[in-house]
Amino acid sequence: MQKPTMSHARIAVTHPVAVMDASGNHKTIALANERALNIYVNKSEYVTLMTLGANPEALCIGYLRNQGIIDRLDKLKTVQVDWDVGAAAIQTHEPIETLTQSTKIVTTGCGQGSMHEKLYAEAEKLCLDAPKVKLSALRHILIELQSYNQVYREAGSVHGCALCDQNGKILAFVEDVGRHNAVDTISGLIWLEDLPTKVGIFYSTGRLTTEMVLKAAQMGIPTLVSRSGTTYNGVELAKKLGITLIGRLRASHFIAYHQGEKIIFDDT
Amino acid sequence: MQKPTMSHARIAVTHPVAVMDASGNHKTIALANERALNIYVNKSEYVTLMTLGANPEALCIGYLRNQGIIDRLDKLKTVQVDWDVGAAAIQTHEPIETLTQSTKIVTTGCGQGSMHEKLYAEAEKLCLDAPKVKLSALRHILIELQSYNQVYREAGSVHGCALCDQNGKILAFVEDVGRHNAVDTISGLIWLEDLPTKVGIFYSTGRLTTEMVLKAAQMGIPTLVSRSGTTYNGVELAKKLGITLIGRLRASHFIAYHQGEKIIFDDT
Repeated sequence: MQKPTMSHARIAVTHPVAVMDASGNHKTIALANERALNIYVNKSEYVTLMTLGANPEALCIGYLRNQGIIDRLDKLKTVQVDWDVGAAAIQTHEPIETLTQSTKIVTTGCGQGSMHEKLYAEAEKLCLDAPKVKLSALRHILIELQSYNQVYREAGSVHGCALCDQNGKILAFVEDVGRHNAVDTISGLIWLEDLPTKVGIFYSTGRLTTEMVLKAAQMGIPTLVSRSGTTYNGVELAKKLGITLIGRLRASHFIAYHQGEKIIFDDT
Repeated sequence: MQKPTMSHARIAVTHPVAVMDASGNHKTIALANERALNIYVNKSEYVTLMTLGANPEALCIGYLRNQGIIDRLDKLKTVQVDWDVGAAAIQTHEPIETLTQSTKIVTTGCGQGSMHEKLYAEAEKLCLDAPKVKLSALRHILIELQSYNQVYREAGSVHGCALCDQNGKILAFVEDVGRHNAVDTISGLIWLEDLPTKVGIFYSTGRLTTEMVLKAAQMGIPTLVSRSGTTYNGVELAKKLGITLIGRLRASHFIAYHQGEKIIFDDT
């Protein structure tokens, strides 16, 4: 599929800060950057995302995809990010009806959003057929993650997420200050790098709230795994969408919230 | 100050779910509810929040306050929440200019929002004069929290936050599925219960991103403490606003990101 013309804007993701610890000692540590990125779609201001800034083009593309604004990568003509002004200019080949139909800015994040109803109403079309998932694959993800989560290890205060294959090999890994930005960036990378999702496993350090379950379905990933937990409504949505939902994943521990019977205990 | 006429809509905050653990055992655990609450202001749909539902009226009031939509409690006439339809109907005494001036839905949450610029531009007016903070007070908060965070202990996957006095006594405590909803609810309670903030301490289990620092300033709370960390930009904003910023708080550990010199080591 034709890709948009894109910038490759890169910028430092951490910054040194002088702090004091509990012994009264002064030292310098690294903290994650949190930059405002104003997204303009066809010259109209659309939304401001606060992001680490590691992969802003994929974030913009995945954000528009997960919000239901664009349904194919080749509808995008250009994605140009300029950190000097903190702006992303996105142009589409054709005007976008969903932008002009509504005067409402569409956002999500930590449960404060306004596009829920439409996306939920459409969610059942997304229903997936989750394959079996090997316990060895889940454990392999945890091992591979150790060499990926570099901002978290350096600075903390970021969420990480990964698209993995059926053996737990990481195909894409993203950290960001918000768990929604991280998952949206993965969504953009799936399109840009044509990554396979049909038997994939999505891993997140963050909680599996309804929005995360919905986004997994939008990306076509049938198995959703987290270091954290979920909500009752996250489980209910996973049931509707056919998604296997697993949380509290550690080396020797997990909770399967939905479709535990899909797990193959091949590594006990 | 005159309070609005309010409902007191209460609803179960957890729900039992059948799960499977890593030994293949089936059991039932409680998970947090995550309910959509559609907020209507003067009969116009404004935003949808995904919330635990513990205190929806205070959430609505604090949300409108922290978004800069209302600046005084007595501007609100009624706040009526009906869980049967998942809606909150808010009426003001006078029309709200900020609602009619802009066609943009204003949201925040996990760094995906659109009202940042205006609020940041106004932030410097909010500059606070942070008092000294006793280490014994910080430790007292951790002790008191143990008898408050009941949803987290039962179901996990919620954030908690608290307004505390200068001795670490908890004046208000809120849990919610999103850390922004939790802090917004505290903001509503401060108005509704006329709670003192000038020498107060705000505690959050969540990360102190720029939006959290901004909200502390909007609530007039000069000391901000978290179990988690912060970002470089959170520290920079705390410097502008005169806020003492402390993270990674444990019984014998913390990091002071700004104004560590305000901490009195009275409990070593």
